[in-house]
Amino acid sequence: MASTWLERVNSPEDIKRLDVESLQLLAEEIRSHIISTVEKTGGHLGANLGVVELTLALHSVLSTPKDKIIWDVGHQCYPHKLITGRKEQFHTLRQWQGISGFPSPRESEHDAFGVGHSSTSISAAAGMAIARDLKGEDYKVVAVIGDGALTGGMAFEALCHIGSLGKDIIVILNDNAMSITNNVGALSDYLGRIRSDSTLYRARADFSAFLRKVPLVGKPLAQVAHKCKVALKNMLPGQLFEDLGFAYLGPFDGHNIPRLQRAIKSGIQRGGPVLLHVYTQKGRGHRLAEENPQRYHGVGPIKVVGSERQGMSYSEVFGKTLEELAENDQRIVAITAAMADGTGLGDFAKRFPERLFDVGIAEQHALTLAGGMAKEGLRPVVAIYSTFLQRGYDQIIHDLALQELPVVIGVDRAGVVGDDGPTHHGVFDISSLRTVPNMTLLAPSSGSELAAMLDWAIKQTGPVAIRYPRGDAGTSRVELTFDPELPIPAATLKNGHDVVIFAVGPMVDIAMEAARVLEPECSCGVVNVRSLKPLDSSLWRLAQGKKAIVTLEDHVIAGGFGSSILELLRHETDLKVECIGYPDTFIPQGSISRLHEEHGLDVNHVVMTIRRLLAGRSLRAVARKDL
Amino acid sequence: MASTWLERVNSPEDIKRLDVESLQLLAEEIRSHIISTVEKTGGHLGANLGVVELTLALHSVLSTPKDKIIWDVGHQCYPHKLITGRKEQFHTLRQWQGISGFPSPRESEHDAFGVGHSSTSISAAAGMAIARDLKGEDYKVVAVIGDGALTGGMAFEALCHIGSLGKDIIVILNDNAMSITNNVGALSDYLGRIRSDSTLYRARADFSAFLRKVPLVGKPLAQVAHKCKVALKNMLPGQLFEDLGFAYLGPFDGHNIPRLQRAIKSGIQRGGPVLLHVYTQKGRGHRLAEENPQRYHGVGPIKVVGSERQGMSYSEVFGKTLEELAENDQRIVAITAAMADGTGLGDFAKRFPERLFDVGIAEQHALTLAGGMAKEGLRPVVAIYSTFLQRGYDQIIHDLALQELPVVIGVDRAGVVGDDGPTHHGVFDISSLRTVPNMTLLAPSSGSELAAMLDWAIKQTGPVAIRYPRGDAGTSRVELTFDPELPIPAATLKNGHDVVIFAVGPMVDIAMEAARVLEPECSCGVVNVRSLKPLDSSLWRLAQGKKAIVTLEDHVIAGGFGSSILELLRHETDLKVECIGYPDTFIPQGSISRLHEEHGLDVNHVVMTIRRLLAGRSLRAVARKDL
Repeated sequence: MASTWLERVNSPEDIKRLDVESLQLLAEEIRSHIISTVEKTGGHLGANLGVVELTLALHSVLSTPKDKIIWDVGHQCYPHKLITGRKEQFHTLRQWQGISGFPSPRESEHDAFGVGHSSTSISAAAGMAIARDLKGEDYKVVAVIGDGALTGGMAFEALCHIGSLGKDIIVILNDNAMSITNNVGALSDYLGRIRSDSTLYRARADFSAFLRKVPLVGKPLAQVAHKCKVALKNMLPGQLFEDLGFAYLGPFDGHNIPRLQRAIKSGIQRGGPVLLHVYTQKGRGHRLAEENPQRYHGVGPIKVVGSERQGMSYSEVFGKTLEELAENDQRIVAITAAMADGTGLGDFAKRFPERLFDVGIAEQHALTLAGGMAKEGLRPVVAIYSTFLQRGYDQIIHDLALQELPVVIGVDRAGVVGDDGPTHHGVFDISSLRTVPNMTLLAPSSGSELAAMLDWAIKQTGPVAIRYPRGDAGTSRVELTFDPELPIPAATLKNGHDVVIFAVGPMVDIAMEAARVLEPECSCGVVNVRSLKPLDSSLWRLAQGKKAIVTLEDHVIAGGFGSSILELLRHETDLKVECIGYPDTFIPQGSISRLHEEHGLDVNHVVMTIRRLLAGRSLRAVARKDL
Repeated sequence: MASTWLERVNSPEDIKRLDVESLQLLAEEIRSHIISTVEKTGGHLGANLGVVELTLALHSVLSTPKDKIIWDVGHQCYPHKLITGRKEQFHTLRQWQGISGFPSPRESEHDAFGVGHSSTSISAAAGMAIARDLKGEDYKVVAVIGDGALTGGMAFEALCHIGSLGKDIIVILNDNAMSITNNVGALSDYLGRIRSDSTLYRARADFSAFLRKVPLVGKPLAQVAHKCKVALKNMLPGQLFEDLGFAYLGPFDGHNIPRLQRAIKSGIQRGGPVLLHVYTQKGRGHRLAEENPQRYHGVGPIKVVGSERQGMSYSEVFGKTLEELAENDQRIVAITAAMADGTGLGDFAKRFPERLFDVGIAEQHALTLAGGMAKEGLRPVVAIYSTFLQRGYDQIIHDLALQELPVVIGVDRAGVVGDDGPTHHGVFDISSLRTVPNMTLLAPSSGSELAAMLDWAIKQTGPVAIRYPRGDAGTSRVELTFDPELPIPAATLKNGHDVVIFAVGPMVDIAMEAARVLEPECSCGVVNVRSLKPLDSSLWRLAQGKKAIVTLEDHVIAGGFGSSILELLRHETDLKVECIGYPDTFIPQGSISRLHEEHGLDVNHVVMTIRRLLAGRSLRAVARKDL
């Protein structure tokens, strides 16, 4: 079927010229286009299919880029991208040098604010509304936030602030009763009550009728009747938002374009802070995604038959191991911030439902909650993606490390994550965690090591973070245990007299391959570092008498593991140390192997670096470039 | 006056034996004791005077350490400390090796959770309540949180979680209508409405009376009447908390001991999550503190006449300079997270009330709000203490640096802060900020430099953080400007042929003094680094041909400035580099100069380090100790 309507839309202005019927046809075409593209590229399916009508309604009422639409999290921006000039490039979605899967102001002036993490939209919108008013300009600011993202604390901070300032701003609560998994928490319960209690809608009218029928004898009775009238306003849904200074409008059917258009217009007309509550269905129009929205939240490209992964992912090893450990240790509980499946805890949740705590998108609370549990004798294990753990940096310092509480943090998706791009790469966890006193920071190079490290970590008396990458942990399994009384030792995988590579986690394989390539030329050793903090003192010993040490990590060089080796070896003035890792720049999207290659973390570059080091050629130019 | 009642109280058990009258007398003695001690030691006066009765009521009903009281922020723990065995040491409050000004589990088993930052108590309490129930134990968990601290997003995350789990937990909302300054935001407005609207309390009773008086003819009318009754429950105060799954009790007079005792008991009896709303008066019983609670939030020891500071503090220079800049640049706005006075923005707030945004205790929102403002052409300046900036680490990466938005961050209280101790030292900002791409990080060594840096920062196109210490910026002022088109250059203050000290901010003075002491022995240079990121390339040039470079920073060595110099000079194998800074441990409380001395950041230690370096003596033992 030719995309007849989509073909005609080249800018949001074209949307304004379409009548409702045409918009509805366009919506269906956008759905098909997204589904067929995401089948090839992978991407966030469910969220995008849920907001097609909402996107069209917004663009038919607003005029971007003058008006600002700020998409929270941003994984629901595909329909927006398709109608704001990125139709032709849409097939490059999430690919190397293609268009981003998230809003990006660099990509289009229609993307009002960059995003990828949750719960930032109301803050950014508040900033824009304030700027508008101070500058005496006149445009609309609309934040679109899911009910899941609304559970993040900073969204509440922003609601309270803007609700009290009273600026013109529209917050569209895109309520699909899900974040990535089913929503949790009291706010979600509250929204559920609005959804279910249809009697509320008629209450005000009923009461007016009631008052008309009863004889109001005397002034006291009339006063009380008035009070009751006021009280009944509180009976309407959304009072919680009204209490925070917002006018609550809704709930509305988020797939009814004319209804949405009217609602947005009335929100604009109302003025001040308005919360517009919209119900949408995740995965709308895709049978499988409607039935299993969790599974179809984000999908990979459709696989060629036979290409399925054989082994387990690191996340799966993590979850499986935790299940086994939890069976024998009642103290073990698991905490996730709305990512039970993503972090491999799905089976744990089924097996130990009373010991799995999904706190919603609330990383800060997750970590301090774990602190409270640990203080009272439990052994909490918190699994959070590296990039989202940035939200809990203060809690790690103030609530866990300072108090030396035995909390284990599974730092999932550490290193570059691929297609999700710069908002999601986990390349700041070593620098932020290794500098915190009392922390232990580990990096396994295989599934077996991850399992053994988790077992070891549970037995420690202070906080332990284990960073592991996205993806395959390989199929080979070896029996491995670490003595809980001792720090985890580094492992020399290959001896070398000339140079030794100190490699972190998944970079160990690359180091081994580089050493093999170099074999005819020099004696190159490889050490699997395992413990990034504390460092094994044998690393210092191993460096003695070598010509050079090369550090290799899937993390920025600045402040990272290489930097800690420079600190360790700073008095070995006869030794050359070179650090390989990501440069001081945000890393774009692309496949993980492509990103490694482009930034010099591949076998070839490691080999060349060592050749240059041993040839005594200057690397100064490289270092000065880092300035 | 002898502290007759306080003398008899040696543990919380003694509290239980006192009748209400005795408790009231004890309360007055505790007040006097706190006032006279804080006059000598300095400390948080207002908050502690406000919770004396609440503390006594809690300890008379609960049994710590079995039951858990978790004080949010913790600066209101003095009455608690006085009656939980720390009466004799109370005069050492906030002193070197004395008792902490905050709850500390290491100090006493009656301190259930360590704290210093805001908004963590409900999360920790939730963790403890979960642990209790999983382990089948039986004790009470009470979090005491101020209305200011409740504005922090993580408190909301915790409310939502525990409200939905339904565990037995009591949250005491200690409502004094203030954080450090007057409270702001919609939540505060909401609490204010509860406070002011006395008609609400009688509404339910009134309505029942009303229904009794009107003739309810027929079933439909009776149904509507029932609906109205339900609605009127919503008319009661605290519905917002009820909506989040809490039973709301209150508001209660927080200085009425028997009323508080009954309220706590009924909260316990009620079961599930209970929010107990208590009104207290900050500074209660101290005339000046009652009249000016902001001024008396935290006080220094009473000064000997003539010892007053002559110059301005760094915070004052910051605020004053910003005022001057804002006069000529309408784009400049200032943002504070409930710390306008602490960060020197008090005068700015008076002069440009419409351009000062106090967001409450909400660092995350503050930073992303600034991002939104910057995106739309303003030049926001956010002033936050280094230790609290840890709360906004993700927002700095995700919302400011990645998007290269021109937001200036005033990182106040960087370095050790003195008496507030380990929860408040700002010794992780260099390591966390210098590793973020696109960031600029500056450190002035004087008030003049701070002023010039702020002027320069406003003119940049990306994010700039300026870190400056607590305290005196000296009296001398020099005319200084930096070319906005160029990076800020390092300044060589003294040439040296043998060794050069690269010093950060306030450490420049110590470096100069060390160089002076060393003058007879060697040629020691001093460089004021100024720009920690990017590093001035002249630093690399300056290092050439020297025997040694010493870095000096008021920050942890791990990942800090010294570490960045090691990265820069990693190919200069003939050069010794030694890093001086704080070790890999949490730094205790004490005066700033004492902390510097104890940890080797004083002139003497710098001199000795350079002597050892030049004598060729090994520093390896030192480095290995860092492992």
